[in-house]
Amino acid sequence: MQSPIPGYLETILDSVRADTSGHVADYIPELADSDPKPLGLAMCTFGGNLYSVGDDGTEFTIQSVSKPFVYALALQRRGWNKVQQTVGTEPSGEAFNELSLDRNTKRPMNPMINAGAIAVNQLINGEDSSVEDRVEEIREFFSALAGRELSINRALCESELETADRNLSIAHMLRNYDVIQDAAHDAVRSYTLQCAIEVDVRDLAIMSATLANGGVQPITGQKILNPDVCRMALAVMASAGMYDAAGRWMTTVGIPAKSGVGGGLIGTLPGQLGIATFSPRLDIQGNSVRGVKIFQKLSKDMGLHLMAAEPQGEYALRNIHTEGQDSVIRLQGKVNFPAAESILDEMVDHDFTGQRLVLDISRVSSFNRMGRRLIKEGLRSLREEGFEVAIYDPEDILKDLQYSDGTEAETLGSLESRSLEEKD
Amino acid sequence: MQSPIPGYLETILDSVRADTSGHVADYIPELADSDPKPLGLAMCTFGGNLYSVGDDGTEFTIQSVSKPFVYALALQRRGWNKVQQTVGTEPSGEAFNELSLDRNTKRPMNPMINAGAIAVNQLINGEDSSVEDRVEEIREFFSALAGRELSINRALCESELETADRNLSIAHMLRNYDVIQDAAHDAVRSYTLQCAIEVDVRDLAIMSATLANGGVQPITGQKILNPDVCRMALAVMASAGMYDAAGRWMTTVGIPAKSGVGGGLIGTLPGQLGIATFSPRLDIQGNSVRGVKIFQKLSKDMGLHLMAAEPQGEYALRNIHTEGQDSVIRLQGKVNFPAAESILDEMVDHDFTGQRLVLDISRVSSFNRMGRRLIKEGLRSLREEGFEVAIYDPEDILKDLQYSDGTEAETLGSLESRSLEEKD
Amino acid sequence: MQSPIPGYLETILDSVRADTSGHVADYIPELADSDPKPLGLAMCTFGGNLYSVGDDGTEFTIQSVSKPFVYALALQRRGWNKVQQTVGTEPSGEAFNELSLDRNTKRPMNPMINAGAIAVNQLINGEDSSVEDRVEEIREFFSALAGRELSINRALCESELETADRNLSIAHMLRNYDVIQDAAHDAVRSYTLQCAIEVDVRDLAIMSATLANGGVQPITGQKILNPDVCRMALAVMASAGMYDAAGRWMTTVGIPAKSGVGGGLIGTLPGQLGIATFSPRLDIQGNSVRGVKIFQKLSKDMGLHLMAAEPQGEYALRNIHTEGQDSVIRLQGKVNFPAAESILDEMVDHDFTGQRLVLDISRVSSFNRMGRRLIKEGLRSLREEGFEVAIYDPEDILKDLQYSDGTEAETLGSLESRSLEEKD
Amino acid sequence: MQSPIPGYLETILDSVRADTSGHVADYIPELADSDPKPLGLAMCTFGGNLYSVGDDGTEFTIQSVSKPFVYALALQRRGWNKVQQTVGTEPSGEAFNELSLDRNTKRPMNPMINAGAIAVNQLINGEDSSVEDRVEEIREFFSALAGRELSINRALCESELETADRNLSIAHMLRNYDVIQDAAHDAVRSYTLQCAIEVDVRDLAIMSATLANGGVQPITGQKILNPDVCRMALAVMASAGMYDAAGRWMTTVGIPAKSGVGGGLIGTLPGQLGIATFSPRLDIQGNSVRGVKIFQKLSKDMGLHLMAAEPQGEYALRNIHTEGQDSVIRLQGKVNFPAAESILDEMVDHDFTGQRLVLDISRVSSFNRMGRRLIKEGLRSLREEGFEVAIYDPEDILKDLQYSDGTEAETLGSLESRSLEEKD
Repeated sequence: MQSPIPGYLETILDSVRADTSGHVADYIPELADSDPKPLGLAMCTFGGNLYSVGDDGTEFTIQSVSKPFVYALALQRRGWNKVQQTVGTEPSGEAFNELSLDRNTKRPMNPMINAGAIAVNQLINGEDSSVEDRVEEIREFFSALAGRELSINRALCESELETADRNLSIAHMLRNYDVIQDAAHDAVRSYTLQCAIEVDVRDLAIMSATLANGGVQPITGQKILNPDVCRMALAVMASAGMYDAAGRWMTTVGIPAKSGVGGGLIGTLPGQLGIATFSPRLDIQGNSVRGVKIFQKLSKDMGLHLMAAEPQGEYALRNIHTEGQDSVIRLQGKVNFPAAESILDEMVDHDFTGQRLVLDISRVSSFNRMGRRLIKEGLRSLREEGFEVAIYDPEDILKDLQYSDGTEAETLGSLESRSLEEKD
Repeated sequence: MQSPIPGYLETILDSVRADTSGHVADYIPELADSDPKPLGLAMCTFGGNLYSVGDDGTEFTIQSVSKPFVYALALQRRGWNKVQQTVGTEPSGEAFNELSLDRNTKRPMNPMINAGAIAVNQLINGEDSSVEDRVEEIREFFSALAGRELSINRALCESELETADRNLSIAHMLRNYDVIQDAAHDAVRSYTLQCAIEVDVRDLAIMSATLANGGVQPITGQKILNPDVCRMALAVMASAGMYDAAGRWMTTVGIPAKSGVGGGLIGTLPGQLGIATFSPRLDIQGNSVRGVKIFQKLSKDMGLHLMAAEPQGEYALRNIHTEGQDSVIRLQGKVNFPAAESILDEMVDHDFTGQRLVLDISRVSSFNRMGRRLIKEGLRSLREEGFEVAIYDPEDILKDLQYSDGTEAETLGSLESRSLEEKD
Repeated sequence: MQSPIPGYLETILDSVRADTSGHVADYIPELADSDPKPLGLAMCTFGGNLYSVGDDGTEFTIQSVSKPFVYALALQRRGWNKVQQTVGTEPSGEAFNELSLDRNTKRPMNPMINAGAIAVNQLINGEDSSVEDRVEEIREFFSALAGRELSINRALCESELETADRNLSIAHMLRNYDVIQDAAHDAVRSYTLQCAIEVDVRDLAIMSATLANGGVQPITGQKILNPDVCRMALAVMASAGMYDAAGRWMTTVGIPAKSGVGGGLIGTLPGQLGIATFSPRLDIQGNSVRGVKIFQKLSKDMGLHLMAAEPQGEYALRNIHTEGQDSVIRLQGKVNFPAAESILDEMVDHDFTGQRLVLDISRVSSFNRMGRRLIKEGLRSLREEGFEVAIYDPEDILKDLQYSDGTEAETLGSLESRSLEEKD
Repeated sequence: MQSPIPGYLETILDSVRADTSGHVADYIPELADSDPKPLGLAMCTFGGNLYSVGDDGTEFTIQSVSKPFVYALALQRRGWNKVQQTVGTEPSGEAFNELSLDRNTKRPMNPMINAGAIAVNQLINGEDSSVEDRVEEIREFFSALAGRELSINRALCESELETADRNLSIAHMLRNYDVIQDAAHDAVRSYTLQCAIEVDVRDLAIMSATLANGGVQPITGQKILNPDVCRMALAVMASAGMYDAAGRWMTTVGIPAKSGVGGGLIGTLPGQLGIATFSPRLDIQGNSVRGVKIFQKLSKDMGLHLMAAEPQGEYALRNIHTEGQDSVIRLQGKVNFPAAESILDEMVDHDFTGQRLVLDISRVSSFNRMGRRLIKEGLRSLREEGFEVAIYDPEDILKDLQYSDGTEAETLGSLESRSLEEKD
């Protein structure tokens, strides 16, 4: 069978292809000369399926799309306490404040604005790092996220540095308030090199999907970031990623997103997808014209919205069936609170008949702490009702078998019903 | 079996019970005299399971917790275009602007601040409505959300109106800019009556769960709001519900929330839960001290965070099995894009052997547009590969059987394998 | 001889008469219907000479031109400490803050904006005053300033109160922060009645000249305000009288000024003049179009600018001449620091030859404290050099004859040289 | 005779000498090491009398006190139109905007803040000037104002440049908005050199008195600036010289002023005085603690306040006396509008008896345009009443003898009454 998804994505591209409004960023000669025509779209599921159409192999500089990733890297390496001393998490609101420093703390309002991104860049590889070592650390991190070696467009970086007065102004003010330690020119060079890393839409979709997947690169399977780091990066992307209109974007499109002046735009739906588009012509806010249109269509068409009320935890209880003397309770998927709640809810109502109750968790992909706790409490409750209780956990994913009363759950080496179950 | 969830919620209450910091709101005599001791917590799943502990039957006035619901009501009845002409969706940022009107449009920045809430209240029941008719419409709507008749604490409303200078100031300014039509005193009375509707934490948890469930009251099953209305209300709650620190709240707690000066606090996780707490002592920002602590614990303990990367769409393909000449593809749950993508991904790799492929959607709870489209395209693709294709849809939930090429899918009246499948 | 000044003022009026740009204030029906054509100009010297041309007897409501005068009244009756607790003295800058309350103190930024003027109005006649008594006190004060009984246009006041939402909004917020005590509607009524007092340009020129003259009404000679009160009122008028463009107005026109929506505009040059114009058509900032033009012309043409470097104190020493055995030192005018300094400077260089030095102060209009002190110190110094020293002070204006060393100056009953001196 | 003024100034110094509160500026090593003890005060009248006490010969760097003077230089050389395209004239209000750029025009708000001063510095000596040539032009201008050769403390400048991040930030942002053309480092170096020019309080008092005197250095008599340039510089100093509290300073002290971080503070009263103090310890706003106290005392004690209602124009008519057939009208001092008005007012009431009226202007120091015009109109009016009219103007200061009707005034070669008049 052939998947209809690429075809669907093609129709999306076709619907915006004719729009040539907007202008290529012109403040950097090298960008001003770039080809305005390319149009690409890629989508990577949290499970690692990658779909891409259009100019999906055309490289461009990542620019501001780098911001949420370097913020995540800083959180991963330096920790929340250190990072929050350097940069806030609030939207900057109307851009009346040239530098967007918090009035009281003098820290940048958030890491999605240039002041915040320059400050966050300085956290990478330690305060004593050379510019080159810092940038190499970022390049390697981006390469791991993308699953291939990325390179830096140094010519473009040099071109940008020639007209970098705005960023130099910011860097000097950050130094003035002791937010950064490097010389202002070094700080801006380091940040500009970060922005000059070259990617295509497939890279960006995978990088975005890694955030959607709790930090595990969904294709290579490499665990790159902690889940809580991804949550924080996405939260800031949601509240501050689209500048002045963040509230409206989240209301109508509902996908945490970040755009770059190079024409790239990413969106991330946690637990679902990473999406990336590329089209160099920008609107007056500096967002890719056709990129924004694609996201609006995807959100409306596909029902992709962070606040969409899609149920979680449904069907975590695969089934309960009788196998000889045993009642086998078979779970599946990730067992978090909503899953555990729906499992327990069905178990509360179930009229168990067998002598022994077997909890088959061979199909569970993972437990979180709350899921583990609630499921074990349920088993303990059944044991107290007089049932014999056992767990079938061939891959040892439950890990801790101890109940809250100090006793321990019994485990089974094999499940007699296994062969039968394989039929369905 | 007894559910361990209430016990868990009790331990949460116990852990914050001793905290008597903060003060009951004192700007209204009737509130200042209220008992500071009650402590309640309720949780309602999108599926309609309600858990509650502590003082879960103590009534209090809803106050600002009413804001997201009345905003949703306005969106439902008047539509997005009308509502957005009246109120924006951006965070108001630092409260340097007493009235939080947008500098350019002179509309309130968002519906979570008083200026926005007063303006939104005016949209209910038409501009020509009397105050009493408008408030009755809101009371009925809240009653439908809660699933029981709620009443208004008119004595408290009168008490509040005696010191309502701030709201009167706002209302006069809204009139000055033609945002509202009623006399300022009527507008403030109408809004204050809305705030004086009495609820308990169970009511609020169910109301919140209705937003989490796309507008369907999860206990009564009544369809009250459209899914897109819920999405918009939740998006605004996320970006502006916790005032100045909205960004930080979303980063660290990650649950769209709204607090009220009466001591109530709700949180909503779309597709998962509605949560509500009640504890009257407030911190300096006007949020319930123990309520905030409970949410912090729940988020950390239970892994509840809007940006948590919980997979969606897993196990939407229940199984593929061979039944005589047929290959039966059995789906389950809601079929949205992530579900359809995971279904198609498995089908693409599957080596179908039977002559006829039967798509069994008897266990599907609903399709959204994109899910329907992709699944049908997949079937069409299989038909083009030479398979005979049929759909088993006893409850007619697919509705439109037409493929994109104009031909129509065949349906089956019964499924021979049904009896067997019932075993598991 | 006929004074050429009225003729000059006529040419000024002629030069702007043809300009019919701008619009009569239309937010009040009664103002919208007013005749746009009148054009008047009056000028009153600090010495009490009044010149007026054009429609100098046409009455109009004083509106915001009342603000500096009521501020002066509050300072006079309640004192600086009380007044500054109620209202600040800083320019409000860009009008992004609807209410212009100071971010920290929550007081109105200054008394020239509506918030400040409403707060200052409340200070008149005590916090317990009725609205009518308060307004009557203001009306009587304005009448004393103008030198005739003024009356209130109550019909216009009622008309304004119908669309007073902006002021009501401000009054409620002032109550909210305990800046005012009256009910908001009473406060706005009181302020609006103040604004509805009817004047013509002659009245306004005299009122303005009273400020220019240190609080002495220059025609009636009545001492109405203290000099320091006038200084403070003029300082605030200079920094905040012309709203957003106060800095530019002071740079280019250089005359502390205040305009009113009724078409009036006053300017005050301390020690020189009060000026008033009337022309009802307003520019987009709400200032009288032709009034502004007249002030620009007067400033440029007449060299009237607060910062114009006109010497003070010149010719305070009328002459020193020898009359028999006496050297007579004759002073004239007001003796302040610059005058005393120039007197002493000439005396230091003078080669006194007579045996007795007589200081003739019969032509001095007044001494200030510093002038008195320095002149007496000079005399004491001459006495220590061996001269016999006496003072001729027939009207006893020096008052205190004691030197800093405790000895006292001798006075003369008559001056022999008097008759001769009378010749010139 | 010995002038009592120095003694008075000594008592002022004595009254503040014991106050050692505040701290020497510590952000520059070279400043931090400076001696905090010196205390000096100087005063220079518009007529060129210089009084100074305390450490009046101790040199210090001029720092921000340079701002109004360089602004005046820019106005003088480049004109108002050019200068106002570069910098505004409005107070910057609360310092929430780090850079104090106007929200709309992106120009610095005024020339008294660093952003404005850096921009104005760039206007000197043309946009293509080298830094050294630009600074030399400023040094020469300051030397002409002070009446002696001033030098630059280059060591201190180098020290300041090491911690100049704030100014570099501003300069880069000014470049970003095309307000300045030089490289940011050059612009900051040029401005910092301007600030490092060394002066003592006597220099500053004379420089300030030059502004008070309409641009004529009162000791050397050199005409350095135009009167309108001085007016504009003083107007901006009044509205923005004392940062956030400009309104309060003007209300209570009433002297246009500017302070510098080196410990200097100047005040200027047009037509009266230049004042300067030196005391290095600064308050939290960066103003000299004892300097501010001295100004408060001087203002209160000496009645020095810009809005003080000191009469102008008094005694411009020296006398009218009969000399044979002639009525001689003798004027004195500067004849501006207030003077002309008071002259004409006396002439209108005078009962002229002689056949010929002689206007003796031999004692007039200058006419401004309006004074000349009104006096000539008065004479013409007397001629039309039938008098023979002549002017005695031995130094030809009236210049233009033509009346408004085209006829010309007659002049006299000598005045017979001259000898007699010389007596007094």
